[in-house]
Amino acid sequence: MDEPGFTLAGARIAIVGLGLMGGSLALALKGHCDEIIGVDADASALAFALSRGIVHRAADLEGALATAHLIVLATPVRAILEQLSALSRQPPSFRIHHSAFIIDLGSTKSAIVSAMSHLPPNFDPIGGHPMCGKETGGIAHAEAGLYRGKTFVLTPLARTSPAALALARELAAAVGAEPLLLPADRHDALAAIVSHLPYAAAVALMRAAIGAGDERLWQLAASGFRDTTRLAAGDLSMMTDILLTNRAAILHALAAYRAELDALAAAIDSGDPAALRAALEPAQRKRRELFK
Amino acid sequence: MDEPGFTLAGARIAIVGLGLMGGSLALALKGHCDEIIGVDADASALAFALSRGIVHRAADLEGALATAHLIVLATPVRAILEQLSALSRQPPSFRIHHSAFIIDLGSTKSAIVSAMSHLPPNFDPIGGHPMCGKETGGIAHAEAGLYRGKTFVLTPLARTSPAALALARELAAAVGAEPLLLPADRHDALAAIVSHLPYAAAVALMRAAIGAGDERLWQLAASGFRDTTRLAAGDLSMMTDILLTNRAAILHALAAYRAELDALAAAIDSGDPAALRAALEPAQRKRRELFK
Repeated sequence: MDEPGFTLAGARIAIVGLGLMGGSLALALKGHCDEIIGVDADASALAFALSRGIVHRAADLEGALATAHLIVLATPVRAILEQLSALSRQPPSFRIHHSAFIIDLGSTKSAIVSAMSHLPPNFDPIGGHPMCGKETGGIAHAEAGLYRGKTFVLTPLARTSPAALALARELAAAVGAEPLLLPADRHDALAAIVSHLPYAAAVALMRAAIGAGDERLWQLAASGFRDTTRLAAGDLSMMTDILLTNRAAILHALAAYRAELDALAAAIDSGDPAALRAALEPAQRKRRELFK
Repeated sequence: MDEPGFTLAGARIAIVGLGLMGGSLALALKGHCDEIIGVDADASALAFALSRGIVHRAADLEGALATAHLIVLATPVRAILEQLSALSRQPPSFRIHHSAFIIDLGSTKSAIVSAMSHLPPNFDPIGGHPMCGKETGGIAHAEAGLYRGKTFVLTPLARTSPAALALARELAAAVGAEPLLLPADRHDALAAIVSHLPYAAAVALMRAAIGAGDERLWQLAASGFRDTTRLAAGDLSMMTDILLTNRAAILHALAAYRAELDALAAAIDSGDPAALRAALEPAQRKRRELFK
């Protein structure tokens, strides 16, 4: 472990995965740290990041590990799990002799935090999940302001040092986000409802519309359909990873959702305007309160 | 019936209901007709429409009926049904001695077209539904461009004359919309899937989120949750009317939706990445094809 009080200012930061999240983090961290090292299996993403000055230099994971104080894993969840597993197996080429902080930006946290708990003791890990995104992924859409004003969930492990937590808080603040500490399983239960369930709802809407088998339907689709189904256009690798690494919480959220749909169907079926209005009203009030 | 070939250019048009839809129609029809008469029980909406020159003059339904060639019913569905019922009962004050075209802008069509079929023979009715809207209702948000590029569904009755259909097509084209002829019950089945089901899905999402009973959930709600739940903020009177006048089609759509959710839940539960991806992929492809 580095000494408590280690700050971002002198840090060499390796960002593994230069997509929308990793690229935007690099842009937002400009001027807040000593050096940003980009790691990506995709040579074109690396070349783009270098040519635009998004990262200071490129390296492979092994090379980055040799000098980085902080490693940020910014790939989809299952790739993060593979990286953590590789770091835990510590083949000679991955062996590091100094200590390093490690954080991830993955969309689900329990599986990742569990994998982090098996890292060798020279790693000081903490889970992270910034609650933001865009319809269009990839480093070409990265922007320094992506994290600004957004919630940045931090999920410490029992072994997470005070220095690692302080550095993670500093990182979140540096990119303009609001850190929120949550146990990993609580994050996953809440994200299942507020993020993964809306995705499943959007996919099921698209599937129901396709299943109707009437091409005129698309001519009737207006802005309401467009917005409600937007998430269904999301990246399949990222979403498959999320759904499979947060399975129990998502199935639980889906069951609660179907119970609400049943209650709504019953209120519609009743034909009673007052009962129906009473079923719709709390949803309207809370939605209007949340997004003004 | 007016002679076939009656065109918008010489028409006095009464718009009953000066909200977002009626107000925007009035603005879009400027210069396309002889006179626009505004009818609204809400004196402040009428005053606003007059002061901004959105309508040429104000009248009550009786006064408007005395001179209008075309009556546009632009209130929520159940108010349209009440207006049609009043016109069908024809109390002395509502008796008209000339003939008049009548169209509505209601969100569901079967109940309205059925009520139109009982109008006295001096009315020449056709159902209409422009597929557009905005998050914020009311005449203060009306805009001339609301209908531009949108689908304007027309649902003729057996008694609808060729002149009424031609005038309705001309009206749709004048406001920049694309007319689409559909039987009323087909419109309702398609709108149930593409418009009313997304609303129910959004309401159920809000209810499931509220039901989780954890205030930290709202800090995790990002743009995906915001967009997927947007429709839940909609006007309760309008939505209650829609749900109650298209009950069977909506319950049918809800059943199809729940079957799709069950299929998705099974794919998630399987833990099989390929099967899950196969379940998500058609939704992604179609959504990306529809909205680029």
